[in-house]
Amino acid sequence: MFITETQIRVRYAETDQMNVVYYGNYAQYFEVARAESIRNLGFTYKQMEAAGVMMPVVEMQTKFLRPAHYDDLLTIKTILRELPEDHRILFEHEVYNQEKKLLTLGKVILYFVKIGSFEKTRMPESLRTLLQRFFPLKS
Amino acid sequence: MFITETQIRVRYAETDQMNVVYYGNYAQYFEVARAESIRNLGFTYKQMEAAGVMMPVVEMQTKFLRPAHYDDLLTIKTILRELPEDHRILFEHEVYNQEKKLLTLGKVILYFVKIGSFEKTRMPESLRTLLQRFFPLKS
Amino acid sequence: MFITETQIRVRYAETDQMNVVYYGNYAQYFEVARAESIRNLGFTYKQMEAAGVMMPVVEMQTKFLRPAHYDDLLTIKTILRELPEDHRILFEHEVYNQEKKLLTLGKVILYFVKIGSFEKTRMPESLRTLLQRFFPLKS
Amino acid sequence: MFITETQIRVRYAETDQMNVVYYGNYAQYFEVARAESIRNLGFTYKQMEAAGVMMPVVEMQTKFLRPAHYDDLLTIKTILRELPEDHRILFEHEVYNQEKKLLTLGKVILYFVKIGSFEKTRMPESLRTLLQRFFPLKS
Repeated sequence: MFITETQIRVRYAETDQMNVVYYGNYAQYFEVARAESIRNLGFTYKQMEAAGVMMPVVEMQTKFLRPAHYDDLLTIKTILRELPEDHRILFEHEVYNQEKKLLTLGKVILYFVKIGSFEKTRMPESLRTLLQRFFPLKS
Repeated sequence: MFITETQIRVRYAETDQMNVVYYGNYAQYFEVARAESIRNLGFTYKQMEAAGVMMPVVEMQTKFLRPAHYDDLLTIKTILRELPEDHRILFEHEVYNQEKKLLTLGKVILYFVKIGSFEKTRMPESLRTLLQRFFPLKS
Repeated sequence: MFITETQIRVRYAETDQMNVVYYGNYAQYFEVARAESIRNLGFTYKQMEAAGVMMPVVEMQTKFLRPAHYDDLLTIKTILRELPEDHRILFEHEVYNQEKKLLTLGKVILYFVKIGSFEKTRMPESLRTLLQRFFPLKS
Repeated sequence: MFITETQIRVRYAETDQMNVVYYGNYAQYFEVARAESIRNLGFTYKQMEAAGVMMPVVEMQTKFLRPAHYDDLLTIKTILRELPEDHRILFEHEVYNQEKKLLTLGKVILYFVKIGSFEKTRMPESLRTLLQRFFPLKS
């Protein structure tokens, strides 16, 4: 299992007139958290695209338990439970505020596809190698 | 069952460097489609808030089947299958492009809550009355 | 002079906790207004990009006179006072609400550049031809 | 003169199909930079709103010199040249990328107004006191 944590400060732009973070903005928070998760490994999503592979989102589930507010310092936990065996990868996200309250739960499924053709492919070997040590071999 | 259709033109701002609509923007499309759905009944979400009731989103599921592109004229179908009996309402959304291809599927659950206290409440009677004719009495 | 009008309904996502449209969202409104302005001529910005020319914004000025609110039906007036002679084009925008109050003034300067090289170029001839009749010859 | 620097990592959501940061997103970057500028003083914009004063933007000027790209680590310099004497405050912003190239210039004028009435007011004394030491007395 590979778990990372990223902090995001809520911007004024991200609130709406309900005085909370607009529900559509969590997708951005999840994106940032995924990008920082990979950066922690010493790889970047930018490098992946430069190498011809991109990761469109194909499915997202979100549960909004409590609202986030302007200027909250959110902690986004990103969890990769399984090392993907094919073109599909599932990230889970948990959003906490500075009082350690759980605000939001997210599940995001992405595909590895080739830039240009949109053809399904696998996780780049360089990233797989970096992730391997978090997933001890099953016997 | 209450079904409406709304059209949205994809803005340049809504695309990302994958040359498609960023996945986080569909939440906005669903919001617009819900608002227009209610407006079709002769009621507005703005009126609901003015009457002291607001509708935070508590759950969202989205499946991204095909990408939307800049300047696409999307049709968002909004489906209300059941008249809510309590504080909870479920809208389903289907996004089609101008070639009638199904791009995206969404399910959004919202609560009716009182502004200020965030206390759960029921759909305002004036809206329920307008919706009733789409939901013949079960016997 | 070439003047067009476009209507935009304010989305909930576009408000912030000040209960008004977030100031950063007017850039999107101006973008939509420019795109619709060109569409009125029988040409689209999408076609321009397909023909290898794109239009990055190089300068923007905005004055916020009165706030816009959720669900307001805005009218964006787009004014092209001069037919560009080189790579530079200036659009002026005026945003009105449904009570015909002037809310916002904008000036946006864009360049015509070649996709790929970012090299400055001129307005495509096909668009110039369509615009010509709004700009009688000076003598 | 009061100068601060804030870093912002470009999100994927903030790019558009031109492969650069959408021009409308700089307003958010400026907002974050202003908020962090004030936080550096030991005060927050959130506290200001809690004390009944808010700061709507009334004017913005932006020059886009070079594009920002996905994953760029931007440095936003925020400059307050004069301590405001009335309801009006002017911030200047300079956006640099990780190669220290100047990308964008911004000027943003905001008003201090009372929440609720939108009546013009002055900068809260607590903030003025914190700023004073950066502005030696003229004689």
